[in-house]
Order: sequence, then C-alpha cells, then structure tokens
Amino acid sequence: MRQTISDFLDRATTRYTIMGVILFNAIILGLETSGTVMNVAGDLIVALDTVCLAIFVAELAAKLYARGLRFFRDAWNVFDLLVVGIALAPATGGLAVLRALRILRLLRVISVAPTLRRVVEGFISALPGMASVFLLMGVIFYIAAVIATKLFAATFPEWFGSLGQSLYTLFQVMTLESWSMGIVRPVMEVHSEAWMFFVPFILITTFAVVNLVVGLIVNSMQDAHAEETNAATDTYRDEVIRRLAAIEQYLKDKDGAKDLHADSLSGERTRANR
Amino acid sequence: MRQTISDFLDRATTRYTIMGVILFNAIILGLETSGTVMNVAGDLIVALDTVCLAIFVAELAAKLYARGLRFFRDAWNVFDLLVVGIALAPATGGLAVLRALRILRLLRVISVAPTLRRVVEGFISALPGMASVFLLMGVIFYIAAVIATKLFAATFPEWFGSLGQSLYTLFQVMTLESWSMGIVRPVMEVHSEAWMFFVPFILITTFAVVNLVVGLIVNSMQDAHAEETNAATDTYRDEVIRRLAAIEQYLKDKDGAKDLHADSLSGERTRANR
Amino acid sequence: MRQTISDFLDRATTRYTIMGVILFNAIILGLETSGTVMNVAGDLIVALDTVCLAIFVAELAAKLYARGLRFFRDAWNVFDLLVVGIALAPATGGLAVLRALRILRLLRVISVAPTLRRVVEGFISALPGMASVFLLMGVIFYIAAVIATKLFAATFPEWFGSLGQSLYTLFQVMTLESWSMGIVRPVMEVHSEAWMFFVPFILITTFAVVNLVVGLIVNSMQDAHAEETNAATDTYRDEVIRRLAAIEQYLKDKDGAKDLHADSLSGERTRANR
Amino acid sequence: MRQTISDFLDRATTRYTIMGVILFNAIILGLETSGTVMNVAGDLIVALDTVCLAIFVAELAAKLYARGLRFFRDAWNVFDLLVVGIALAPATGGLAVLRALRILRLLRVISVAPTLRRVVEGFISALPGMASVFLLMGVIFYIAAVIATKLFAATFPEWFGSLGQSLYTLFQVMTLESWSMGIVRPVMEVHSEAWMFFVPFILITTFAVVNLVVGLIVNSMQDAHAEETNAATDTYRDEVIRRLAAIEQYLKDKDGAKDLHADSLSGERTRANR
Repeated sequence: MRQTISDFLDRATTRYTIMGVILFNAIILGLETSGTVMNVAGDLIVALDTVCLAIFVAELAAKLYARGLRFFRDAWNVFDLLVVGIALAPATGGLAVLRALRILRLLRVISVAPTLRRVVEGFISALPGMASVFLLMGVIFYIAAVIATKLFAATFPEWFGSLGQSLYTLFQVMTLESWSMGIVRPVMEVHSEAWMFFVPFILITTFAVVNLVVGLIVNSMQDAHAEETNAATDTYRDEVIRRLAAIEQYLKDKDGAKDLHADSLSGERTRANR
Repeated sequence: MRQTISDFLDRATTRYTIMGVILFNAIILGLETSGTVMNVAGDLIVALDTVCLAIFVAELAAKLYARGLRFFRDAWNVFDLLVVGIALAPATGGLAVLRALRILRLLRVISVAPTLRRVVEGFISALPGMASVFLLMGVIFYIAAVIATKLFAATFPEWFGSLGQSLYTLFQVMTLESWSMGIVRPVMEVHSEAWMFFVPFILITTFAVVNLVVGLIVNSMQDAHAEETNAATDTYRDEVIRRLAAIEQYLKDKDGAKDLHADSLSGERTRANR
Repeated sequence: MRQTISDFLDRATTRYTIMGVILFNAIILGLETSGTVMNVAGDLIVALDTVCLAIFVAELAAKLYARGLRFFRDAWNVFDLLVVGIALAPATGGLAVLRALRILRLLRVISVAPTLRRVVEGFISALPGMASVFLLMGVIFYIAAVIATKLFAATFPEWFGSLGQSLYTLFQVMTLESWSMGIVRPVMEVHSEAWMFFVPFILITTFAVVNLVVGLIVNSMQDAHAEETNAATDTYRDEVIRRLAAIEQYLKDKDGAKDLHADSLSGERTRANR
Repeated sequence: MRQTISDFLDRATTRYTIMGVILFNAIILGLETSGTVMNVAGDLIVALDTVCLAIFVAELAAKLYARGLRFFRDAWNVFDLLVVGIALAPATGGLAVLRALRILRLLRVISVAPTLRRVVEGFISALPGMASVFLLMGVIFYIAAVIATKLFAATFPEWFGSLGQSLYTLFQVMTLESWSMGIVRPVMEVHSEAWMFFVPFILITTFAVVNLVVGLIVNSMQDAHAEETNAATDTYRDEVIRRLAAIEQYLKDKDGAKDLHADSLSGERTRANR
C-alpha cells in the first residue's frame, strides 16, 4: 500500500500534474487581486482556490503517509508543509495578512522544478561562507544604531526615535537611497558635524558589501575552476606517472637489478599518492 | 542573375555604402526631432528619409531574391526585415508611436558592423545561462506583487492598485530608487509593519541580482581561461606523452621483449586518448 | 605572578567570560536608548554599565601588567585600549557625543572573536593595494571641489559655499544620490553648461571605483588561486622530475657511462632548482 | 648646454621640488576659494600663484628646449603643456570658467608621481577593450533619445525637449537616479504606457554596463594570471622536455641505433616547438 502510493507520487505525470495545479493556483490567486474579476466570478475563484488547496493537502498527506518519518528528512518537504500550512491557517480566521500570504504556495514551484531547486540550493550554499561578514555587518549596524539613537533621537524622532527606527534608517542610508538630500542634509542643519558619522558609515558598509560580493565571486570561481581542470589534468597526470613507472619497472626487470633504487623509489611513490 | 546580385551584395563597397546610408539616415531622423530644422527644411528631411528607406527596401528585396529561403536562416536578416518593416508600417498610417520607432532602423548598424554584432551575440549567448535565475526572479516578483496588491491596494491604489502597478513599484524598489522616502516610509505610516515585507524583498532580489552577475563573471572567466590555456598546455602534454611512448617503444624494440607489459600499456594509451 | 595572570587571561573560560560581558554590555547600552526602560530602571542600567566598564578596565590593566611593553606590539591590544579609553573619558565630563561613543566598546567583540578578527584583518590587508587609486580619487575630488566652489559658490552657497561643502556634495554626486533632480538640474537652471562638469565627474569617479573593485577581485582571486593549486601541482611536478632523474641515473649507473652527458644534465638540474 | 639642462631636469631633487611646487600651488588655489582668506591675504595668494605658474612655465620651457621635438613623443609632456597652458590663457582674459580650471594644474601631480601615472595608464589601457561596448551604448542612447524626444517633447519639454535634453535625462535614468518617482511616474500620468519604453531601456543599459564590468574583470584576471603562472610553469615544462630528450638521446647513443625512430621523433620535436 505505502509502496503503491510512493510509486504514484514519484511518477513524472504526477509531478507534472502537481506543477500544473501550482501554476493554475498562482493564476487564480493573481485574478483574486482584481476587483472586476472578483465582482463577476468571485465565488468561482474562491471555489477553484479551495480545490487547489485540497489537492495540495491530499498530496502532502499521501507523501507523509508513504514516507513516514523519512518525510521530514528532506528539507524541501518541510518547506512544502510550511507553505501549504500558511494557506490552511487563515482559511478559518479573517486576518488580511495571512490571506495575502496564501500566494506563498506558489513557492512550491521551486521544490517541484529541479532547475529552480538547484538555483535556490546554490544560493543557500553560498550563505555559510558569508556568515562572518554578516555577523560583522550586524555588529556595525548595532553600534551605529545605538550611536545614532543617542545623538539624534531628540531632534529627529521620526528617523532615529528608537533603536528599530535607527536600524531601518541606517539600512536606507546603506542602500544610498536619499541618504544625503533626504536624511543627512536635514540632520546637518541641526548637528553640523553629522557627516562625520554618516560618511564613514557609508564607506565602511559599502566596503563590507563589496568584500561580500568579492568573496562570492572568488568562491564560485574556485568551485568552477576545480571541477573544470581537475578531470582533464588528473587523467593526464596519472598517465605520465604510470608511464614513467612502467619504464622504470621495465628497465629493472630486464636486468634483474632490483637492488639499488628500489627503496628510494617506493618511498617517492607513497609520498606522491598522499 | 541571382549569383550576380549575391556577389554585388557581398562586396565590401556595397556594405560600406549601406552603413553610410544607415548613419546618414540616423542623422536625418535626429534632425527631425528639432522644431527649427523642420520649419526650415522639413520637406527635404522627409524626402531624404524616404530615399534612405527606399534604399533599405531595395537592398533587403535584392538579398531576399538572391538568397531565397536561406535568407531566413540567418537571424540577423530577420532582424533587418523587422527593423525596416516597422519603418514601412506607419508611413501610411499616422500613429505617433510607430513614427518614433522608425529610428530603430539605426539598429541595422549592429547587423552590418562585425564588432557590434559580436558584442550583441556575446550578450545573447550569456542569456541562456541566466534563464533559471530569471525564472526564479519572475516567481519572486509575482508572489511579491500578489501580496503587495492584497495588502496595500486599498490604502495606496496609486502604487499597488493592480498587479501591474505592484510589479512596476516593486521593480522600482528593487532598483532602490526612492524605495524608502518615496514608497516604504509613506506606506509604514498606515501599515507600520510594512518594512517586514520590503526589507526582505530588497535583500532577496539584490542577492539574486548579485548571483546573476557572479554567474556571468564565472562563465566569462571559464570561457576565456579555457581558450587561453588549452592551446599551449595541450601541445606540451601531447609532446610529453609522445616522447614517453617513444622511449618505451624504443626500449622494447631493442630487445624484442614485447611480451610483458604490452597489454597493460596499450590499455593505458586508449584510456588517455579518451 | 606575571605568568599566573597571563595564564589566567589566556584561558578559554576567561575569554568566553569577557565575550559574555561585552555582549551583556551591548544589550545594556541598547536598553539605555529606550526612554521607557530608563524611566523604570535607569539607575540599574547605569550601575550595570559601570560594572561592565570596571571589568574591562581590570582585564586590560591585568593584561598590561602581565605582558609589559609587549602589550603594545599587538595592534588589537592598542585597539582595545582606545575603545575602552573612549568609555572612560566622558564618564567624568558631560559631552553627549562622547557618551554616545561608549557603545564603541562593542567593537571589542571583534578583537575577541577570531572569526571577526580574521574578516577585519582581511579588509585591512586589502587597503594597501588600493592606496594609489585612493590617492588618485583624492586628487580628483580636490580638483573637482576647487572648480565647483569657484563656479557655483556664489549661486549655490548651500551646496558649494566652501571647499568642505563642495567635497560633501561631490561625494553625494558620486554615490549618485539625487545627483540630477536634487543638484545638477537646479544648478543647470542658472549655469546651463553645468552638465559638462558633473557628467564627466560621475563617469571618471564611477570608473575609478569600478577599477578599485576589479583590483580587489583580481587580488583575492590570485591569493586563493595560488594557495589552491600549488600544493597538488608541486607534489606532482616534484614526483615527475624525481622519477626522470632516477631513470637517467639508473641508465648511467648500469653502464658506468658517466662521461658524455653528465655535465650538461647537472647544468639543467641546477637551472631547474632555481 | 642641452645636456646640462636635461640632466638637471632628470635629477631626483628637481623632480621632488616640482612636486612640492605642485602641492603648494594646490593649497594656494584651495585657499583662493575661501572669502575670508582672500580678504586678509588676497594679494599674497595671487602673487604666490603667479610664482608657481612661472616655475611651471620655466620647467616646461627648459624641457622643451632640452628635448626638442622628442618632447612631444611622450604623451605626458603634451598633457603637462595643456594643463599649464589652460592656466596661462585666462591670466589675460577674465572668464570665470577658465580661472576655475587653473586648478587642473594639480593634475601634473599624476605625470610626476610614478604610482599615480601607472594607475592612470592602467585605466587608459583598459579603454580600447571597452570600445565596442561603448559604441553599442552610444547607438542605444542615440536611438532611445530620438524616440523619447519624438514621444515626450510636446508634453515634457523640460526633460525631453531636445535631443540633448533627452540624452541627459536618459543618462540620469541609466544611473537610476529618481528614474521612477522623478521622471517615469509623472510621464506615465500622461502617457500611461511609458514604462514599456523606460523599463526595457534600464534593463538593456544596466546589462550592457554589467557586461562592461565583467569584461574588465576578465581582462584584468587574464593579464594577472598570465604573468603569474607562466614563469614557474615554463621552467618546469622546459625541464621535463629536456630530460626526456636527454634519455632518448642517451639510449640511442649507447647502441648507435640511430636508424629506426630518428625521423619520426625529429618530426615531433618540430611540431612541439611551433
């Protein structure tokens, strides 16, 4: 029984059907945003959305039954469960935000399509290498936010009133959006030395971001380079070493002269294999 | 007859003449934007433009006749046909937009000049490798647009009134143009938690764009690297393998000792050639 | 005695305790920015901050005593001293700015955590290679600021009134923030040819910044590449040379024929070792 | 006589003196922008500036005399001549713009300092490789400017009134400065489909700029890579080939067996040398 369901779920046609349902559901949820469409065929849209949701729930339940606890070992299954779960939660309540998040179901297209899956996995695999720079950026942001709040909270409560507001404003400054005309020039009218805080902040965070991107490029290059060269190079190197060993062996076998260099050469061989 | 026309079209002088006409036409269409020039010599400008167009039509007709159906095999010919075709369509009608598009004829300079052609071909050849990231960006944009429309359509109809408007606004946010002072700060005055939607959106899309650029760099590097190193390396490797094989062969021939290692070595040789 | 203190400071538990105090202090200083928290527990916050500061002073004093003058050889120790020193200075006075800078103590987390330390050392090691481009940017900025002040000081004193204001405005223009709608379009209403100054300035500085980033990438790539390939390649190359030398030696020893090529080959060997 | 002057100019002390005068002149011209300094010591400033200028003129005249026509072979000499010439021209007239350009004399610091010289030469050497992409960008900008002028000149004369104004506005759009809130949203209020022109324009120009930067990176990497690896690799490869040739030669010499493979091996040798 479990095996039958598992086979059915693994079939290509099942996978394509699920992808079709995901895309159809995405269109349905897109149409839901249009007032005129909802006036004309609102009931139909809601009904079709419910049907799509039912299919997803059925598929996940079947998968959960077929795989048992192994279901949770694949992070993508957990991802699917979460994304569909969000859609179930608000179906009973009436929270506008949770209703809006139902479209996150479209994210299932990533777990179903192998190409998108690989891109996202590539993104995620790049994150650990960036962790220490992110940590450093966090430290810099926290320090800058505390300083900005202390200095400017009284005079510019809208931008630097609390730690949270300062963090948001500093993020805006880091993206260079209206940093001067919008934020720093008005601030400088009261605190004329404010540029001594903001210009170094921009230089340091920009430099950190540039280093992050440089790190990403170098890592990708090395991965690509390693894959590319090693195959051809290794074949060639093995061939050269094998041929040299064969010549040596041949010369020695011919004369039965195995006394002189045997020990030194075998030492070299083990060293090279390490 | 066909051959004569084909030869005439392939001549360097013909190509340079066509390029001259394209550039002359570009100047004519540039002058057409000036009110004072049109007041003084409007008729002349229009007449000269018609002459240029006639030359293009004649050239393409000749090419079509000379090449027959092979004409359509070269994508650049189809490009030329489209670009000149746009110019013909509105000559009879009166649509301002189509009239403005007549300057697209200048794009023919790309298909005629080999340098520009190669640059554009380089651009286009980079696109397939970026397809899956583009697809992912499309999914992210669609999801974000549906969420934004659901949440903010009622309060900010100008920016998030429909799916299309939301997509445009999100594109603006991704380019970081006035994202905070222009869009998110006003939105936060009504929906104070809006930053929880926009800040992750900026981080995710920026990260995706950075990965796109990193991918481009890595691909270009690999292409360049492969071309550069392989020529010299291959010559050297072939030389080493050939010399080793010659020594082996020489040693064996000298003694007539072809019994021992012949089979194992020939196996290595075929493996290396693969 | 010195040795005992030195051992105590080097212990992992001591290091983790200090890191804990740094993070606890960071939270304390973050809470200090909140008006409501200060109203409820202001005295406690100030007291806890003083305790943290006392711990830092004690730790640094102990380190200074244990290490003696070697303390100043490690740049990170000097950094710690400065960062804690800033905190001490305003404790007596009442300057708001210096009080705000007390949060810089959190920067000690960088000198304590090896991961962050390495990232910052990586950043600093990249700076010398960028010195000449920075110098060039300085020359360009100074020249542009003098020209802008001379040309626009009379008409736009707010932006170009003095050398300092011009430098700030040009930095804003370089970051592309509101350069056109905010600065250059208003300027062009008075000086219609102002774009001839600003557009080249943007192109030159942007090109210089791009070259800076390209230089960073190339340097990082080379460092990474050198580390990666050399280990495997060197082992292989040594193996090939050693085996070839062994074959040569073997052939010669067998026949006692050391007369002919001995000199030329030893010459090659010394050349290769260089 | 010529030789004496030439030797004097090439002396390190002369070069350092000239650099000192350049930097002193830069400070003088910087002080000239300050109204208070000019009120107090305006005459002195002008006098010192004239002295500096006299020194430059004397140095260039001496160089021109010492080198003769060879003077013009070095592009940096012509650069110096131009930069000092600008300073001479307005000394008689009264044009504010030319007076402001006198600070360009500070650019001489580039031709005198070898580090800066190398950076600028590096920048210039990167330009030819970017020529075809620049040409393409020029074609795209010209086409877009003609279309924009035709479509929007009537409704938005301030931004798209003439070809020149359109080019400036499109440059602003390419830098993403206020492209949406400042330009495209107002335009879309009249021409609701304007995004179909601007969004593709942004995508295409941004993609072209990214490709420009990628090209720069790839070129720099290749130059750096070629320099770095070739030295070590070439030494190793020459060593391997030399040793193999020596073994072959040794084996043949020993037996006097020069009949069999001599022709085929010499053929290989010539092939490898190509």
